[in-house]
Amino acid sequence: MKQIHAGIIGLGRAGQMHLNNLMTMPDIKIVQVADVFIENISEKLNGMGITNQTRDYHELLSNPEIDTVFIFTSTDTHEEIVTAAAKAGKNIFCEKPLSMNQHEEASLNVLQAVKDAGVKLQIGFNRRMDPQFRNVYENVRNGKIGTPQVVKITSRDPDLLPHDLIQRIGGLLFDFTMHDFDMARYMMNSNITEVYAKGGTLIDPTLKDINDIDTLALVLQFENGAYGLIDNSRRAVYGYDQRVEVFGSEGMLKAENVSDSTVELYNDKHVELKKPLPMFQERYKPAYVAEMRAFVNSILNDEPVVAEGLDVVMAQRAAVAAQKSIETGLPQKVDTTYPLN
Amino acid sequence: MKQIHAGIIGLGRAGQMHLNNLMTMPDIKIVQVADVFIENISEKLNGMGITNQTRDYHELLSNPEIDTVFIFTSTDTHEEIVTAAAKAGKNIFCEKPLSMNQHEEASLNVLQAVKDAGVKLQIGFNRRMDPQFRNVYENVRNGKIGTPQVVKITSRDPDLLPHDLIQRIGGLLFDFTMHDFDMARYMMNSNITEVYAKGGTLIDPTLKDINDIDTLALVLQFENGAYGLIDNSRRAVYGYDQRVEVFGSEGMLKAENVSDSTVELYNDKHVELKKPLPMFQERYKPAYVAEMRAFVNSILNDEPVVAEGLDVVMAQRAAVAAQKSIETGLPQKVDTTYPLN
Amino acid sequence: MKQIHAGIIGLGRAGQMHLNNLMTMPDIKIVQVADVFIENISEKLNGMGITNQTRDYHELLSNPEIDTVFIFTSTDTHEEIVTAAAKAGKNIFCEKPLSMNQHEEASLNVLQAVKDAGVKLQIGFNRRMDPQFRNVYENVRNGKIGTPQVVKITSRDPDLLPHDLIQRIGGLLFDFTMHDFDMARYMMNSNITEVYAKGGTLIDPTLKDINDIDTLALVLQFENGAYGLIDNSRRAVYGYDQRVEVFGSEGMLKAENVSDSTVELYNDKHVELKKPLPMFQERYKPAYVAEMRAFVNSILNDEPVVAEGLDVVMAQRAAVAAQKSIETGLPQKVDTTYPLN
Amino acid sequence: MKQIHAGIIGLGRAGQMHLNNLMTMPDIKIVQVADVFIENISEKLNGMGITNQTRDYHELLSNPEIDTVFIFTSTDTHEEIVTAAAKAGKNIFCEKPLSMNQHEEASLNVLQAVKDAGVKLQIGFNRRMDPQFRNVYENVRNGKIGTPQVVKITSRDPDLLPHDLIQRIGGLLFDFTMHDFDMARYMMNSNITEVYAKGGTLIDPTLKDINDIDTLALVLQFENGAYGLIDNSRRAVYGYDQRVEVFGSEGMLKAENVSDSTVELYNDKHVELKKPLPMFQERYKPAYVAEMRAFVNSILNDEPVVAEGLDVVMAQRAAVAAQKSIETGLPQKVDTTYPLN
Repeated sequence: MKQIHAGIIGLGRAGQMHLNNLMTMPDIKIVQVADVFIENISEKLNGMGITNQTRDYHELLSNPEIDTVFIFTSTDTHEEIVTAAAKAGKNIFCEKPLSMNQHEEASLNVLQAVKDAGVKLQIGFNRRMDPQFRNVYENVRNGKIGTPQVVKITSRDPDLLPHDLIQRIGGLLFDFTMHDFDMARYMMNSNITEVYAKGGTLIDPTLKDINDIDTLALVLQFENGAYGLIDNSRRAVYGYDQRVEVFGSEGMLKAENVSDSTVELYNDKHVELKKPLPMFQERYKPAYVAEMRAFVNSILNDEPVVAEGLDVVMAQRAAVAAQKSIETGLPQKVDTTYPLN
Repeated sequence: MKQIHAGIIGLGRAGQMHLNNLMTMPDIKIVQVADVFIENISEKLNGMGITNQTRDYHELLSNPEIDTVFIFTSTDTHEEIVTAAAKAGKNIFCEKPLSMNQHEEASLNVLQAVKDAGVKLQIGFNRRMDPQFRNVYENVRNGKIGTPQVVKITSRDPDLLPHDLIQRIGGLLFDFTMHDFDMARYMMNSNITEVYAKGGTLIDPTLKDINDIDTLALVLQFENGAYGLIDNSRRAVYGYDQRVEVFGSEGMLKAENVSDSTVELYNDKHVELKKPLPMFQERYKPAYVAEMRAFVNSILNDEPVVAEGLDVVMAQRAAVAAQKSIETGLPQKVDTTYPLN
Repeated sequence: MKQIHAGIIGLGRAGQMHLNNLMTMPDIKIVQVADVFIENISEKLNGMGITNQTRDYHELLSNPEIDTVFIFTSTDTHEEIVTAAAKAGKNIFCEKPLSMNQHEEASLNVLQAVKDAGVKLQIGFNRRMDPQFRNVYENVRNGKIGTPQVVKITSRDPDLLPHDLIQRIGGLLFDFTMHDFDMARYMMNSNITEVYAKGGTLIDPTLKDINDIDTLALVLQFENGAYGLIDNSRRAVYGYDQRVEVFGSEGMLKAENVSDSTVELYNDKHVELKKPLPMFQERYKPAYVAEMRAFVNSILNDEPVVAEGLDVVMAQRAAVAAQKSIETGLPQKVDTTYPLN
Repeated sequence: MKQIHAGIIGLGRAGQMHLNNLMTMPDIKIVQVADVFIENISEKLNGMGITNQTRDYHELLSNPEIDTVFIFTSTDTHEEIVTAAAKAGKNIFCEKPLSMNQHEEASLNVLQAVKDAGVKLQIGFNRRMDPQFRNVYENVRNGKIGTPQVVKITSRDPDLLPHDLIQRIGGLLFDFTMHDFDMARYMMNSNITEVYAKGGTLIDPTLKDINDIDTLALVLQFENGAYGLIDNSRRAVYGYDQRVEVFGSEGMLKAENVSDSTVELYNDKHVELKKPLPMFQERYKPAYVAEMRAFVNSILNDEPVVAEGLDVVMAQRAAVAAQKSIETGLPQKVDTTYPLN
């Protein structure tokens, strides 16, 4: 059996979740792990049979046995670590974004390093591998609804994030809506050429202090002529609201929210159903496994990855345009020229 | 029993449908009917016991026994007939719009006549009385979802209209989206202050010849700070798609499409359900009855009507703004000052 | 236009509902109506243009202009009136049962009179014309689920009936389950050959005083080898519960309960839907219209009726068997030989 | 952390599935595994770090480090191995049944050995831990539907089993319906006192050759006065059909089938949904984990198990009664006296 020899960088909550998923895949051999606070989880890792541990990711990158690295560190380290990993000749899995800098030069520098090294890079746009959205995507591709004309995405978080966390990971547009821009572009198989966005603090006015918003409504124009509508909220009291609808010349596809219950309670007042799954950990659990599976398959079979570096640049451009649209009150064009040619 | 003494003007397809509904209400007495082609349906009307028939609506308006007129004539006659009815001192039910002229002066002249006459005027914004949307509306008003923050409306026709019909009744924005503007404003209980719209001919490019569009996506700003998203299409192959969603600080309300079937067929391929109701006649059948019922109640009990003249002006202003937004590519402010003060 | 010249006997609550439905059908001319308390509704009837009224149904039956009678009188009069109507040579619509006497000789005497007269008789098994069940029925007939193997019927009333009403119309088996026996037989297109029933008073023990039950569970054997399961309850706090499921070699068809609302309320506790329609008047409203329509068509086109006299006899035999099964604790055979040959 | 020191006996397909689940639980230490064909999976086990392997379960049972055994061997070995495990003083998890012998003395002998040894025994009635059914169960217990009056269970396999497999694991009643008898009794919290069953070969007549059936419909009487209805089929072309409904004085609870898709495809013909999950491996995946979790918790916290030996005896008695009912055509009483007192 062909195997990936993997190094994992970053073992916070997300990293550990991904590690558990990777451990179930027989064609991945975890060679070494790195975390700046490795001592906190050292014993646990030993119990899992992962004894080659380091605090220094450079040490891991210089390990010749490793051909692939999974980067689960905080967002502000991506630029540095992905670049170093590329230069070390490793295939790379990394969460978006590639850089906290909204000017895309930073991201493009990273991608140039990846290109120069000739390694594979998959971006963690996990929703592309969510079974619900994947089903919609495949049916759209298979022509089940004819020519796509309108995509609608509703994406609502269950609750506000702490301000300091937002400052570390990016605000609504760059951390949250980013996924929706990517999903919209992915579903329509076409680039976004224009964004008009309305956004504000309808839930927590103090978000203005950190230049963030909690509610968003926007319209997209796609290169192929189609339109998109996205609405976001930071607090949906009923849980994590993640829906996609694609309308086309021959029909419509809808992915509704996911619940873990099919139970219906009929009483003298109404019929009660259970709420949707509460958070991304539950909703996108299968997606997190599937994106890893897809990445491993891409490497072992030398096939294109599910989400590449360009995809994160394109989503970032849309986010920048949305930001500027909110600030100026005017629609903003989005550059669709392919960089790094 | 208090009774309305009614005259009906216009007995085309819509008029006959409304007439049948009115016939079932014991507190309406049909005194006289008028239609320019009255001879075509004279016998049928006689069979229903309606023998006082005329080709000339002026004759009907001068009938002193009549206190209320229902106007079901073609859109281009509304301005003239509503004005004449007001001057004749009759209460008036009329479909939107009040004038084919997009400059609102024409509509305001009509409303001034209504105001001067001191009569009641109800606009046929039938969707306000659709049981599904009404349920959402009442739950929003009752605070079931806290403060409304986002309203989303999807409204799709089952198929394209003939070009000549469009030229008589108005294009997508003024005939179709008009209802959505009204619904958005009604649900949010707040005026629309800004519209940004993208629209085009994704289905039938020849619509450009008559300056119309078939596909629309837009974002609204409301006076109370909330946002709205509307998408329209002229051809949904699966039927008449009419959905509303209101999201608020304490929850969400969705009105899904209506089907007349609860039957599920499970076979070796999938589960099949019946499509939504095919057209407005089926979907809004209860709404057409309910709006008449509401109008009659308003008159008999001297209560406010469900949709008044101002409402059609406000919806028209949004349509004008959307038109200009599509033409200019820029968001457009909507005047919310109350005219006729 | 061919027209039926109709007489209506019995104008209590059910009769008036049916009358309103009949009034909307242009190919029915209401010639005369009869009710023992005709004076109570005489004015109302006049207002509807029905002026030929009588207290004596014999007078109506002797009216030569009438070719068809609709009998909506109380159950205990069916035997007498149907017989008289047949002898008068009128086509007959009548609710089940044909006789309060559980010994079927009484019913067969009625049917013999109908047969001798050569008139049409349609039994008011309205559920056969319910759009949901009709859809299932037609899909079964069209082979959509292959060979039917199991039918399941759940039928629950919203609340207990007064004891004196039960004594007039028959207990659970003969008034309520009767419909389910007919539906089971209709769906399977096969006679019931055996019944095993468990029944008791789980809701109202005082029903024992009038020899009735409120809860029932039973298993059926059909002539074609298939099985059936029926469960009944007199009190479902969530409304009128009417479901049918047919399982076959190539799939399954389910008709779920009908609600008049598609609105979903998502809050921090759960998702709330509206309850099913509360009572038979709402649930079977379209069925009541459709069965009349079908009867009129049968007469005008000389086609078989939707539910004939034999059907009520067969359902009655199943009810008698169920009764005996509950009393003896043993399964009971049901005679399927066709009477009156 | 308290840990269970576990031995696993039987590593066929089911055993390996359970092993994978157990491996994810940190409070279970797999000390040793046994399988008569251990050489076939030895390498795979080594790769999982399980190196203490044996062909002889007696060796495992005599391992003093082991306190708990999980028995996943074929049904015909349960009687022998459970008895031996009990005599060795181990806590035991075992799938139903405890004996292939339909006379319950065999099962009772096993349970006597368990009782004498004072060890815990949990029966693999996995559906008790299915999240859907568990939700219904807990809501029933919490009084959400008042007094339960009727339980309905539909349980259909996706396809026929090979005859030789049936002969090894038991026919429909003893292998398949057994779960439904247990579920019915569990939901109603009351013993089954009578069974009337109709069963036959509506799908595969050659099943008669091995004295089995493929279709079943039955009615249950419970000790508390309630009723039950169960229907089974061996071949549902649309997948694994597993539904439970409990009706009570204050409402109804339904657990519908589980699908892994929320995607709806609307086209010009109908609306398409994905079929239910295809087989028990998918549908009951969370239940298999949850029953292990519950068993481990019961041992570590010395609490009652979720399904005990008595439960399998009671379900077996119902199966015996159903068998006899089908053979005799008569309802059969079920003894509810507690054995082994």
